[in-house]
Amino acid sequence: MKIVSAKVIVCSPGRNFVTLKLETDAGVYGLGDATLNGREKAVVAYLEEHCLPALIGRDARNIEDIWHYFYRGAYWRRGPVTMTAISAIDMALWDIKGKALGTPLYNLLGGKSRERVMVYAHATGKELGDAVDAVGKARDEGFVAIRVQSSVPGVASSYGVPKGDRAYEPAQKGVAEEQVWETAPYLRYLPKLMDRVRSTYGFDFHLLHDVHHRCTPSQAARLAKAMEPFDLFWLEDPVAGELQEGLRMIRKHSTTPIAIGEVFNSIYDYTTLITEQLIDYVRMPIVHGGGITHLQKVAALAAVYHVQMGFHGATDLSPINFAASLHFDLAVNNFGVQEYMPHVDPAFDVFKVNYKFERGYCTIDDKPGIGVEIDEEKAKKYPYVAASLPVARRTDGTMFHW
Amino acid sequence: MKIVSAKVIVCSPGRNFVTLKLETDAGVYGLGDATLNGREKAVVAYLEEHCLPALIGRDARNIEDIWHYFYRGAYWRRGPVTMTAISAIDMALWDIKGKALGTPLYNLLGGKSRERVMVYAHATGKELGDAVDAVGKARDEGFVAIRVQSSVPGVASSYGVPKGDRAYEPAQKGVAEEQVWETAPYLRYLPKLMDRVRSTYGFDFHLLHDVHHRCTPSQAARLAKAMEPFDLFWLEDPVAGELQEGLRMIRKHSTTPIAIGEVFNSIYDYTTLITEQLIDYVRMPIVHGGGITHLQKVAALAAVYHVQMGFHGATDLSPINFAASLHFDLAVNNFGVQEYMPHVDPAFDVFKVNYKFERGYCTIDDKPGIGVEIDEEKAKKYPYVAASLPVARRTDGTMFHW
Amino acid sequence: MKIVSAKVIVCSPGRNFVTLKLETDAGVYGLGDATLNGREKAVVAYLEEHCLPALIGRDARNIEDIWHYFYRGAYWRRGPVTMTAISAIDMALWDIKGKALGTPLYNLLGGKSRERVMVYAHATGKELGDAVDAVGKARDEGFVAIRVQSSVPGVASSYGVPKGDRAYEPAQKGVAEEQVWETAPYLRYLPKLMDRVRSTYGFDFHLLHDVHHRCTPSQAARLAKAMEPFDLFWLEDPVAGELQEGLRMIRKHSTTPIAIGEVFNSIYDYTTLITEQLIDYVRMPIVHGGGITHLQKVAALAAVYHVQMGFHGATDLSPINFAASLHFDLAVNNFGVQEYMPHVDPAFDVFKVNYKFERGYCTIDDKPGIGVEIDEEKAKKYPYVAASLPVARRTDGTMFHW
Amino acid sequence: MKIVSAKVIVCSPGRNFVTLKLETDAGVYGLGDATLNGREKAVVAYLEEHCLPALIGRDARNIEDIWHYFYRGAYWRRGPVTMTAISAIDMALWDIKGKALGTPLYNLLGGKSRERVMVYAHATGKELGDAVDAVGKARDEGFVAIRVQSSVPGVASSYGVPKGDRAYEPAQKGVAEEQVWETAPYLRYLPKLMDRVRSTYGFDFHLLHDVHHRCTPSQAARLAKAMEPFDLFWLEDPVAGELQEGLRMIRKHSTTPIAIGEVFNSIYDYTTLITEQLIDYVRMPIVHGGGITHLQKVAALAAVYHVQMGFHGATDLSPINFAASLHFDLAVNNFGVQEYMPHVDPAFDVFKVNYKFERGYCTIDDKPGIGVEIDEEKAKKYPYVAASLPVARRTDGTMFHW
Repeated sequence: MKIVSAKVIVCSPGRNFVTLKLETDAGVYGLGDATLNGREKAVVAYLEEHCLPALIGRDARNIEDIWHYFYRGAYWRRGPVTMTAISAIDMALWDIKGKALGTPLYNLLGGKSRERVMVYAHATGKELGDAVDAVGKARDEGFVAIRVQSSVPGVASSYGVPKGDRAYEPAQKGVAEEQVWETAPYLRYLPKLMDRVRSTYGFDFHLLHDVHHRCTPSQAARLAKAMEPFDLFWLEDPVAGELQEGLRMIRKHSTTPIAIGEVFNSIYDYTTLITEQLIDYVRMPIVHGGGITHLQKVAALAAVYHVQMGFHGATDLSPINFAASLHFDLAVNNFGVQEYMPHVDPAFDVFKVNYKFERGYCTIDDKPGIGVEIDEEKAKKYPYVAASLPVARRTDGTMFHW
Repeated sequence: MKIVSAKVIVCSPGRNFVTLKLETDAGVYGLGDATLNGREKAVVAYLEEHCLPALIGRDARNIEDIWHYFYRGAYWRRGPVTMTAISAIDMALWDIKGKALGTPLYNLLGGKSRERVMVYAHATGKELGDAVDAVGKARDEGFVAIRVQSSVPGVASSYGVPKGDRAYEPAQKGVAEEQVWETAPYLRYLPKLMDRVRSTYGFDFHLLHDVHHRCTPSQAARLAKAMEPFDLFWLEDPVAGELQEGLRMIRKHSTTPIAIGEVFNSIYDYTTLITEQLIDYVRMPIVHGGGITHLQKVAALAAVYHVQMGFHGATDLSPINFAASLHFDLAVNNFGVQEYMPHVDPAFDVFKVNYKFERGYCTIDDKPGIGVEIDEEKAKKYPYVAASLPVARRTDGTMFHW
Repeated sequence: MKIVSAKVIVCSPGRNFVTLKLETDAGVYGLGDATLNGREKAVVAYLEEHCLPALIGRDARNIEDIWHYFYRGAYWRRGPVTMTAISAIDMALWDIKGKALGTPLYNLLGGKSRERVMVYAHATGKELGDAVDAVGKARDEGFVAIRVQSSVPGVASSYGVPKGDRAYEPAQKGVAEEQVWETAPYLRYLPKLMDRVRSTYGFDFHLLHDVHHRCTPSQAARLAKAMEPFDLFWLEDPVAGELQEGLRMIRKHSTTPIAIGEVFNSIYDYTTLITEQLIDYVRMPIVHGGGITHLQKVAALAAVYHVQMGFHGATDLSPINFAASLHFDLAVNNFGVQEYMPHVDPAFDVFKVNYKFERGYCTIDDKPGIGVEIDEEKAKKYPYVAASLPVARRTDGTMFHW
Repeated sequence: MKIVSAKVIVCSPGRNFVTLKLETDAGVYGLGDATLNGREKAVVAYLEEHCLPALIGRDARNIEDIWHYFYRGAYWRRGPVTMTAISAIDMALWDIKGKALGTPLYNLLGGKSRERVMVYAHATGKELGDAVDAVGKARDEGFVAIRVQSSVPGVASSYGVPKGDRAYEPAQKGVAEEQVWETAPYLRYLPKLMDRVRSTYGFDFHLLHDVHHRCTPSQAARLAKAMEPFDLFWLEDPVAGELQEGLRMIRKHSTTPIAIGEVFNSIYDYTTLITEQLIDYVRMPIVHGGGITHLQKVAALAAVYHVQMGFHGATDLSPINFAASLHFDLAVNNFGVQEYMPHVDPAFDVFKVNYKFERGYCTIDDKPGIGVEIDEEKAKKYPYVAASLPVARRTDGTMFHW
């Protein structure tokens, strides 16, 4: 089953998505997500200029071989652009394999380990009261796991808080917004927010929070400890993760579960974190982490050390990645939770999806492969719009982690 | 696709084999090897009495779930009997999945990473000259990787050396033979054997040797160091492996590649060995190591740490396991070598195999699933014969490692 | 003193028990427990088919040699089935030695280190109040050490809680019950239970609790920390124990004493746990842990690192094992506590025991050997009934630890 | 001093080069190399689409701030494409700073620590004799440090060996060449080559060798040990470097100095390698490693642990990067050696360089900034030609490290 054509489709139905389409001489095609938020065109060029010519003529069945071809064959390994391109190829090949064999992806990954996938909602507010209300709204919608974020009093802009009434989309058109941030008020504020959430709604649901890399190890350790009375499901990205040892201090001081890695792209970003048992959840998404092939290996490594999977799933990843994630979530034993942020309507104008949300859980139907289709004509209606994620500075102007 | 029947077939075409057959309501059936040399009936009972009733009615597609059902559901985890039973179930389910989808097993494991599988032959001799000749014979047969073993002068019996003219089959009818062994003469003798092999045939082929657990760490370190001039592909099972830290000393003193684990049955037997990089090759076979599902995880863990797969493949494992191993070997990137010891003819009277050996490599055809069939009528012609592996004593009578 | 006959007796007086009986040419016989709950027939086959023929003719006095014969001679080492078979042989040989010398087992193990053996009772309840009352009842019966378990509100089924009014027997006839479990509510609930127990009855008795492997390391660390105000004697099996390093995090965060290993079967399951001082109590029972011979070595290793013995002693082990445990408990210096769960009456119809409970302690009389007899005729009245331990799934269907 | 324009120039005078040109309102402009061999267009897109719009209007003097803006602002950190884009910006800004202050770059980096920069030559041969002759030729040209590579008998293609009579340029037009490689013959061959080199020319010059990631840790340890009699200046990239711990075994077995990292791009790729003192030389080039700003920090960390700088300097990096490297090499105290491979003539048609080679050393003149100019008109004469680095397969077809 030879690959006979390969093309990249860029569209922006609400936000930018990059989609890889591979066609085979068996008449079966596959789709893979190649979206790297704010760096989309680099992935497009990586694929079109450097990968796709080498894909033509290869046997689509040999996914492991093709994975290593592009991983090792790049010579310059790892990194978000490289690994997103590889992920897209890998996803499209698994989609092809499923379609060629007439079976949904999860069945190729070992079958179902569960019937439905617990997802967590985003609840955000411009102030404490709004955030608390948003948690209540998410509970009313049936969510059993909710991530809460809010603006911090005295801090000009906070991660995860929308500006207007629309759902939170941090990327904005054109050049990155420069936000202002200080961690000290946040450290003092967060326990208040969590206390209000728990005292309002009790403990009978999973509560999550994303630090978004904005702590030093000692700040993160302090924060994780301060979160203990609120029984968090996880505290996410407590410190910037390039230095894996940076998580050690948190672990020494707190039992709050830790999730990390939505910006990671390789199993090597996790070796120390996992083998030293510094984390509880893997956040690296399929679309950035080398695809299904690589994530299966990460999940295997994680399982040995009691670590569970908790895929990134914001709307900066396309419905194709989300569907692939659900297949993976259904199949793997060491599943924890799946992030779920519904795409805006235009996305569903372009992508025909096979999953749905109901009362706290997502399910996916039995269409072969990944099961999401793209309407290429409609995609053309939504041309690419350059957009950037924000950056953050401290009040003295220091470039900081967004 | 429900499992509707499950049965265990025991036969002895040359040696004992235990085979699990699962049938589904889709008319597809699967076969798994459940042979545990010298402990066959314990696995039969484990399956028949404790597992098969719980299999009936389960969805054969959900392999991961069923794996955890029997692993965790046993309560008393791990161990050769337990894990062989789980392996048989897992293999049969992968066989079913392949047949149901009409595709060979390797295609479900990621496709082909290579076209053929390098195997190593056994060359054994009753004395040094015989062993050296046996290496020559194996080279003449086209082998590019050869394991050499020989009797040790002054030691009554040695691992790997046949008694008569037949191929080496250590298990013998009835109660275990008690052999006599001393390690000291072996340590002095082995370099002579290796020197003769290399000086006779040169270095242009892979040379292997199996210590069969008979060294202490300091003996093993000395031996591994003494092997360095002979450029071994691997030195196998240098010490008994229950204590993984027992391999540290070898690694400190020698660069000779180390293979271990034909007696292992769990990923947890390898965690220290792999993450501390004390070994180069994983020997745990599919049939004893929890099946394809578990071995995929072991291979993933191994790959991170530069460790390759080198499956046990003596004739104490059935052709079903050997075929499954070849599929696995074809698919995984971090493949090293596959042990290959041809079964005696009666085995092929019962098992119809889809693989062949040619000039140093094995290949397997594209029959769906694992692709080996069993002739149940013929199996009845070869009833079970109780047999035991030998045990070893030192010259003073001390029970020792065989 | 040659072994002249060996047979396995399976009976089910209330629950299944497997008993090994060895007879010698000196007219002395010995009994060993070979019960592996839910996997009984595999042990029977292991013994009958693969071990007993090799026992005949051996000198029953050479226990150490016979131990290594079956441990090393199996080739495929460790695991619950293998080690239970070895345990039964070992126990029967010690029973023979005691009878041959006309002395109780404890006297062969070094004599008495104490006059009586502190045991802990099971106190369980369907809800918090019931559990608290059960603790009171146990105190009234004179127990000075009590393990408390209770159903968790909102969790369909909990470990350790009987369904009807009978004593807790988790195994049920036929295929395993699939229970539903979630850890999060349990983590919130347990401190409330413990608080009520301590505020009702004070601190003047030993309080124990069994987590039954249902936590991740960070959950277990949190729980162990939360238990500190309640002065636990131990917290048992806080995480699944295949990965010994998995206990490290608990130890970093809490001083609550930890017991582990009722599912272990080898000293190698404890090496990291003991040498890194991650635990306080060894739970591996004689019947699954290779017998008296092997447990003496475990106790020796444990003593070096301030670890004490706390044998598993639920009714899934036969009175023979319980009596052997009491001998061991009397003899060893580093004794902690002994689990004690009285067998139902039919068990005593078959097994004539030499131990009794009085005011918190068990004592054993001075009958030679282990001192428990089996009435083989009565055993026949209670034929084997296939039964299985439950399995647990999370609410989304994920196979979990029972 | 605001940046007022930014453009990317792609040309292929002999091979592809990507050059970033930044212009300021002060009339000063800067050039940065952005060449990522075989992945050029991805960097172009990364720069043009995602970085350059955000550069316009920034103060060119604030290099540190701009570095963090693009590093942290990417959100998805590290990786070859990202870091090469950042490197190009960083280099161009340092070029601007030098030009604005009318001073050569080295003067801004702390001035000269030496007058000239020791470089090493490439000596390669199609067979042993050729390679040895090539070393002689390099010595005749005055080189005092020479890297020797040669084809390995019996291996179809080897790293570092040109095909025809032209200088070695591994990238070839179009899709990657699939080469065949085996490590075993190489391990046996290399000591012979080195022995001949040293016995022919003596020890009075620095001898280097590049393993190009083709060993496992145990192979690399063996090779490093075997190299000891030949007094290597360094052994380069002995194993693939994503797993930094993978270098530990080499260090345990050999004192041969180790260089690593021409494929690295971040200080975090070196943390374990440097703090555990597993290496002697940093190979990460300025153009891929985040520019001068980031490499200064790497050099600082390295110096603490006695590690020296040894920049990658093959012709896949443009003359701009080479000149920047020379400035860096002149300035930093812990300089080791600089790779030097002269560009083919057309490169000098486009790039006007300020450095020269003489008797084993390179010197650079005192032009302000980096000092290399680009002739944009001439660049247009050499349009981009898609080219790829080779990939390597083992003889059985396994995708391997090139």
